[in-house]
Amino acid sequence: MPKYVYRFHEGGKDQRDLLGGKGANLAEMTRIGLPVPPGFTITTEACRAYMRDGRVPPGLRVEVTTALREVEDTLGRRLGAPRDPLLVSVRSGGKYSMPGMMDTVLNVGLTDASVHGLANMSGDERFAWDSYRRLMQMFGATVLGVDARAFAEALEARKAAAGARSDVDLTADDLRGLVDDYRQIVSTTCGRDFPQDPREQLDLAIEAVFGSWNSERARLYRRRERISDDLGTAVSVVAMVFGNLGENSGTGVAFTRDPSTGDSGAYGDYLPHAQGEDVVAGIRNTLTLDDLRERDPGSYDELVVAMRRLETHYRDLCDIEFTIERGRLWLLQTRVGKRTAAAAFRVAVQLVDEHLITLDEALGRVTGEQLGRLLFPRFDRTADTPLLTRGLGASPGAAVGEIVLDNAQALTRTQAGAKVVLVRRETNPDDLAGMIVADGILTARGGKTSHAAVVARGMGRCAVVGAEALDVDEAHGEVRVDGVVLRPGDVVALDGTTGEVFRGDVPVVDSPVMRYVADGLDAGLQAAPDDEVRDVVHSVHRLLTHADSVRRLRVLANADTADDAHRARARGAEGIGLCRTEHQFLGERRHYVEQVVLADSDDERQSALAGLLPLQRADFTALLEAMDGLPTTIRLLDPPLHEFLPDLTDLSVRVALAEERGRVDEHDVRLLAAVRRIHEQNPMLGLRGVRLGLTVPGLFALQVRAIAEATVELRRAGRVPLPQIMVPLVGSVREMQLVRAETEGVLAEVAQRSGVRLEIPIGCMIELPRAALTAQRIATQADFFSFGTNDLTQTTWGFSRDDVEGAFFSDYLENGVLTISPFETLDADGVGALVRIGVERGRSARPDLHCGVCGEHGGDPESIHFFHQAGLDDVSCSPFRVPIARLEAGRAAVLVGEDTTT
Amino acid sequence: MPKYVYRFHEGGKDQRDLLGGKGANLAEMTRIGLPVPPGFTITTEACRAYMRDGRVPPGLRVEVTTALREVEDTLGRRLGAPRDPLLVSVRSGGKYSMPGMMDTVLNVGLTDASVHGLANMSGDERFAWDSYRRLMQMFGATVLGVDARAFAEALEARKAAAGARSDVDLTADDLRGLVDDYRQIVSTTCGRDFPQDPREQLDLAIEAVFGSWNSERARLYRRRERISDDLGTAVSVVAMVFGNLGENSGTGVAFTRDPSTGDSGAYGDYLPHAQGEDVVAGIRNTLTLDDLRERDPGSYDELVVAMRRLETHYRDLCDIEFTIERGRLWLLQTRVGKRTAAAAFRVAVQLVDEHLITLDEALGRVTGEQLGRLLFPRFDRTADTPLLTRGLGASPGAAVGEIVLDNAQALTRTQAGAKVVLVRRETNPDDLAGMIVADGILTARGGKTSHAAVVARGMGRCAVVGAEALDVDEAHGEVRVDGVVLRPGDVVALDGTTGEVFRGDVPVVDSPVMRYVADGLDAGLQAAPDDEVRDVVHSVHRLLTHADSVRRLRVLANADTADDAHRARARGAEGIGLCRTEHQFLGERRHYVEQVVLADSDDERQSALAGLLPLQRADFTALLEAMDGLPTTIRLLDPPLHEFLPDLTDLSVRVALAEERGRVDEHDVRLLAAVRRIHEQNPMLGLRGVRLGLTVPGLFALQVRAIAEATVELRRAGRVPLPQIMVPLVGSVREMQLVRAETEGVLAEVAQRSGVRLEIPIGCMIELPRAALTAQRIATQADFFSFGTNDLTQTTWGFSRDDVEGAFFSDYLENGVLTISPFETLDADGVGALVRIGVERGRSARPDLHCGVCGEHGGDPESIHFFHQAGLDDVSCSPFRVPIARLEAGRAAVLVGEDTTT
Repeated sequence: MPKYVYRFHEGGKDQRDLLGGKGANLAEMTRIGLPVPPGFTITTEACRAYMRDGRVPPGLRVEVTTALREVEDTLGRRLGAPRDPLLVSVRSGGKYSMPGMMDTVLNVGLTDASVHGLANMSGDERFAWDSYRRLMQMFGATVLGVDARAFAEALEARKAAAGARSDVDLTADDLRGLVDDYRQIVSTTCGRDFPQDPREQLDLAIEAVFGSWNSERARLYRRRERISDDLGTAVSVVAMVFGNLGENSGTGVAFTRDPSTGDSGAYGDYLPHAQGEDVVAGIRNTLTLDDLRERDPGSYDELVVAMRRLETHYRDLCDIEFTIERGRLWLLQTRVGKRTAAAAFRVAVQLVDEHLITLDEALGRVTGEQLGRLLFPRFDRTADTPLLTRGLGASPGAAVGEIVLDNAQALTRTQAGAKVVLVRRETNPDDLAGMIVADGILTARGGKTSHAAVVARGMGRCAVVGAEALDVDEAHGEVRVDGVVLRPGDVVALDGTTGEVFRGDVPVVDSPVMRYVADGLDAGLQAAPDDEVRDVVHSVHRLLTHADSVRRLRVLANADTADDAHRARARGAEGIGLCRTEHQFLGERRHYVEQVVLADSDDERQSALAGLLPLQRADFTALLEAMDGLPTTIRLLDPPLHEFLPDLTDLSVRVALAEERGRVDEHDVRLLAAVRRIHEQNPMLGLRGVRLGLTVPGLFALQVRAIAEATVELRRAGRVPLPQIMVPLVGSVREMQLVRAETEGVLAEVAQRSGVRLEIPIGCMIELPRAALTAQRIATQADFFSFGTNDLTQTTWGFSRDDVEGAFFSDYLENGVLTISPFETLDADGVGALVRIGVERGRSARPDLHCGVCGEHGGDPESIHFFHQAGLDDVSCSPFRVPIARLEAGRAAVLVGEDTTT
Repeated sequence: MPKYVYRFHEGGKDQRDLLGGKGANLAEMTRIGLPVPPGFTITTEACRAYMRDGRVPPGLRVEVTTALREVEDTLGRRLGAPRDPLLVSVRSGGKYSMPGMMDTVLNVGLTDASVHGLANMSGDERFAWDSYRRLMQMFGATVLGVDARAFAEALEARKAAAGARSDVDLTADDLRGLVDDYRQIVSTTCGRDFPQDPREQLDLAIEAVFGSWNSERARLYRRRERISDDLGTAVSVVAMVFGNLGENSGTGVAFTRDPSTGDSGAYGDYLPHAQGEDVVAGIRNTLTLDDLRERDPGSYDELVVAMRRLETHYRDLCDIEFTIERGRLWLLQTRVGKRTAAAAFRVAVQLVDEHLITLDEALGRVTGEQLGRLLFPRFDRTADTPLLTRGLGASPGAAVGEIVLDNAQALTRTQAGAKVVLVRRETNPDDLAGMIVADGILTARGGKTSHAAVVARGMGRCAVVGAEALDVDEAHGEVRVDGVVLRPGDVVALDGTTGEVFRGDVPVVDSPVMRYVADGLDAGLQAAPDDEVRDVVHSVHRLLTHADSVRRLRVLANADTADDAHRARARGAEGIGLCRTEHQFLGERRHYVEQVVLADSDDERQSALAGLLPLQRADFTALLEAMDGLPTTIRLLDPPLHEFLPDLTDLSVRVALAEERGRVDEHDVRLLAAVRRIHEQNPMLGLRGVRLGLTVPGLFALQVRAIAEATVELRRAGRVPLPQIMVPLVGSVREMQLVRAETEGVLAEVAQRSGVRLEIPIGCMIELPRAALTAQRIATQADFFSFGTNDLTQTTWGFSRDDVEGAFFSDYLENGVLTISPFETLDADGVGALVRIGVERGRSARPDLHCGVCGEHGGDPESIHFFHQAGLDDVSCSPFRVPIARLEAGRAAVLVGEDTTT
């Protein structure tokens, strides 16, 4: 039989799996001699057995009896004894923190008899009755399943009868009466009396905590946080200590460093004559730790020593909960503390400088997501723009613009050059047009997985959702917020990170960290307004530099133009992993594409293509010049040709109306026939990529020639252009063979004519399941692989990104099919399985095959860790995300084998 | 060093890999004592070495010398000796027959000197000079690379000079002059004389045959026939025998049974005083074997004995090539003979009855493709409808209809109720609308992989392509064929199997084999016009019955209605593997779908769904009643809802025009908004299947309720309904979990209310790569798997079937990326890899997991063999193909481990 109960002195901090975070840390603090009330922890294994069998596992009762007896012996008191009762708290706590999701019961052990003992012992009758009614309230609701409102109503009635404004105004007698009321409520609702056997209270409370693991809200929370339902919670049983036994008692929370700024030195809140829940309730204003020093220097000193001990021991910023009972300090909880992004970088570097951790470890303490937060522009908080309201920060960034209430307004105003914020009660797919042109999106309803939130994140658009104070009145064309009335044209500002909504224009300031990654350390330091921020920039610099030195993954950028390329290079990109050539066919060049499509003969088509040659050669020359000396991967044309032509429906309507009006445009009619001919039901799965190259003669040859001639031109000018040619949408080795033959032919011809040797690698995208599955063949014809995880996600899941994110991803995130969009973070189980298969089979044919990834996942932290583990050689992402990818690639290298999900 | 040369007596028929088909069979005949001229075979391994190193492998020369010396010793003649020369033929022959694709050189050994010896020996000077000029012609073109037209021109010039109408009119002197001309052509073109060293001739000829393996046409042929380029050809060197040495000489081909009807008894053609090439050329009319018996009873008897010996030895119908040289019979080649579908069945059963083979072996000798050919309706050949012309039979079937020349005519006439045949020079994607409504398609250009052929096969539409005599004159709106002028409205009839095109209406007769599979043996026999056909029906019956007894795969049908179900059951289906429920939402029921889409509230939507319940219950009752006692798999709704609504472009035009005319239809406007809202860029990858079920509340519940209530109704009536519920487009176990919970809830409710126990399995389609990759999880929630290989092919390749087959499959078949549409025959390397992964991972979680397939591949012979090998439990196909699937499932079971590619 497994051991289900660990006394605090038996466990330790590495047993989070078994004892939960809280239990493991209580044990650790006990072990290193810090003042923790005696107690024990029942393991998660017991909880799992309870979930499996529907009852507490045999043997647990006896183990609890033994452990409880030890606690009783230590303190010289018995649980719920009438004269001098031991009281305990029964606390939930799983491996991962799930704040407020599971149950906890305090004051277990109080009965009609022992309440008198507590009054005696504490010398405070009011305190005893208040403790008892709190137990009945918590136990009644949590363990016995009484509707909490019944207790609240009885409390209100008592207050009214006593003329009390607040709970604290109730006297001992009032509270004794309230206990009578509660006793009545329990008997009536449950058909049984409130249990008077202390041990029965304890056993029922333990079982209730086990059960709370599977409450609806806990399950929902876990699904969202991607915590497995199978883990179970541990239960810690801790002797009660009381901060509400007079002015020399109190309770507080403290941090070993400031979690907001990262400043070193203890930091915290203290509330005298109070229990933990009073601090949380925020009824009274808290004091600072300095105040505590003045009031109780002994406890203060003891606390500071304990905190230093904890930080040295945990080698990280810790937060703690503590209680002082009549001048004696007790630590009730500790954990590695949450902190802001800025604090994370500063604290990590401070700990290195204090020789507590290594640089590798420091790198593990910060995340790309935190770095990302430091890169966004922020509103200038020194400006005194009034806060209008607050919602959920659903998609980060800062947006300022005129309010628009529908698509029509959004389009009209943006066409007139205005920046707009689309304000809706909630959004649905009809609102897409407006969302696309808006700078920001603001809704009154919905959470972080609502339609607005999902679509906005997908588009990288700033959004605040669920700002419930907003009353969006479309009928009257106005928005009301707490008495303020706003109309279209009024300006608002959204902070997509904090969820704040401001009225009027708020100046936006560049982030100094952004200045640093874009322009170097000096620029970043100069942009910092004070020493604190300068220290943030310094800390980022040290950790990013370290990440560069340890990472194995090369970080490249997705960049289509010379401008993009310069930006990427400045941010540390070591090359271009994906240059899309689509834009080279857009704008004024569309008419060449029209000519290609409308061509009646091969000659006509070739002459249209020839017209594009000098334009594209100039594009490539500029790009390759910008990337001088660094590899530059150019993808041959990917999208279907109809993307360069007018929309079928629009054109059909135009032609039908023109006919109706007797003003037929011959070009439109001809174009309509062509658009109809090449129209596809599912263009994502149609004539595009390599299929286009093999079907439209001369198309790929044109691109290859432009690349080759640009290379020759730069080589003659003494530069070092390093183009690589990448073929999209390959599904079969034969496609690669055919394109390779054509490409090598063009390269050889240009090389011969120019006398410049051209050794340009020819590789392909792996973005179809079939490419991954037959990678061992494709590798024989490809000099490198680049996983196109966007398309691979589309085909592996059968999701069209254009369609599904708006249509049902919000439902799918709500019902738990998805925990995050697979277009945001790589789906390791499905798409990732194909990536692994592709790498493995490809290298089985060509052991030195270079494999990279150029989907948007290349800039996503969790995905980068996956790619590192899957053995890829590089990731490519947008220039903006290059620093984030550098940091995460470094973290992936130092965290290998560790749990990287935090 | 490997052995490169095998004398005929050293090899045998099982060495086709090494000796090629021809060499292996020559060796086998020699081994069993049949009269084969002496010779030897150079292995395919030597050819592979030649291809690898670019030269004949070391050691080969010596081996050839030794083997040649043995032949010389046997015959007492030396190669090319001036007095009494040995001549040899140098013949290509790989593992698989590639008729006419590679080179062969006859009469090797003739020189300016030995030609006189040959004249002497044969006593026929004209023969000697004719043989020499033939050698120079073949050797010149094949080995020395001279343009064959140069020789043809010289021959024509000689004939003109001599006033000869035909080659045979040329005298010995004429031919000697022609040899001079040829000698001149060789010297001028090659800069060298025609080689006079017989051994040099032999070595060069061998090398040329090796080289011909990689000729352009041979490579193309192999790609189309899916023969590996790596095999290489063997080379057989055979002593020449001559059928053109007078009236007691001759040459012929013979079959051990009639390959056309399957009648037993020898059958063949004979041409006296001729060489093999004369038979092929068809210059003179051939005689029958009966004629040979009269002319040369000795040789005839010897031939018949040899044929019986071969058939007993090969245990199959054989064809042979033979030559009689001055009354002496020589066998030059044999192989298992090609035959018609009817003959295949009859011969296989005859061989069983003659105790030559087992029933298992007989099953291996026929194919589903042959059975399919016997099922198609045929034109009644007794009708004297005139043959108009002939093309390639590109898509089988029989079609009769009015000629139409474009889409507009096709649509007008079919809307008027006419059947039409679309006649085009060649088709392109623009013609799709016409092809869809036409009964048959006829083109003047293009081969079996042309656009018309590919699309027609994809649609199951009868097609004849490449009828080159057709002159399609769109400008004048007429079609001319050899002087006949046809106009739209004239009737033609197409035989998509033979490629015949008839003028006028040809009566179509049902196939007796089809009557047999549809209505049983008696009906089939009654429909047969004669004993021969009755024997075909009998033979099919015996082999199909045997297939049923040996196959492991269960054969189910795809059937949507009770009518389909009856049809399937009659043809031997053991259940329904796929009932699509789409049609239950079509027709007059569309307005319910409109209501669901337009619903403003949940109530409105539920009431629209409730309206469908009685209708769908009736559908399922009829279906389950038809399948009484057999499993019936019903797929919940799969297609996106917009498929039930008007097309976006059409509706947009209608509304725009109505507005223009001031006659706005409010319903249309409302509908357009909804259609626009649910419009998708890529509906194949959009909101459909299980996603629809999880997004439109009540939709799946309606279907499940209708199934459950139909089941209750039938059970109460004493029937045995066996429905199974199948969830489409599952990509994640969580989807299955949610649908399963909802489905079980509805089933439990109906069961409780009715008091009828309902145990209905709930399974899912595996049609997304992710489903196969995560099958171990999905299997925990699915009672069975059914691979939807159509969709799986679409996502694995990234092909939208609607789009790509017409757009570029013809190009892809032409350039060898595809050898066959992956929608026709399962792509074993890509899609098949996922099927294997899905089965393996699914069964790792649930070892008894039932796995089937319900894509159209379920009726394709090659795919069925794959599914058998992959361990599936059943295949489901259209009712028409059920007998074919039964046969192939039986073949797969008996052919396991054998090469099933023939």
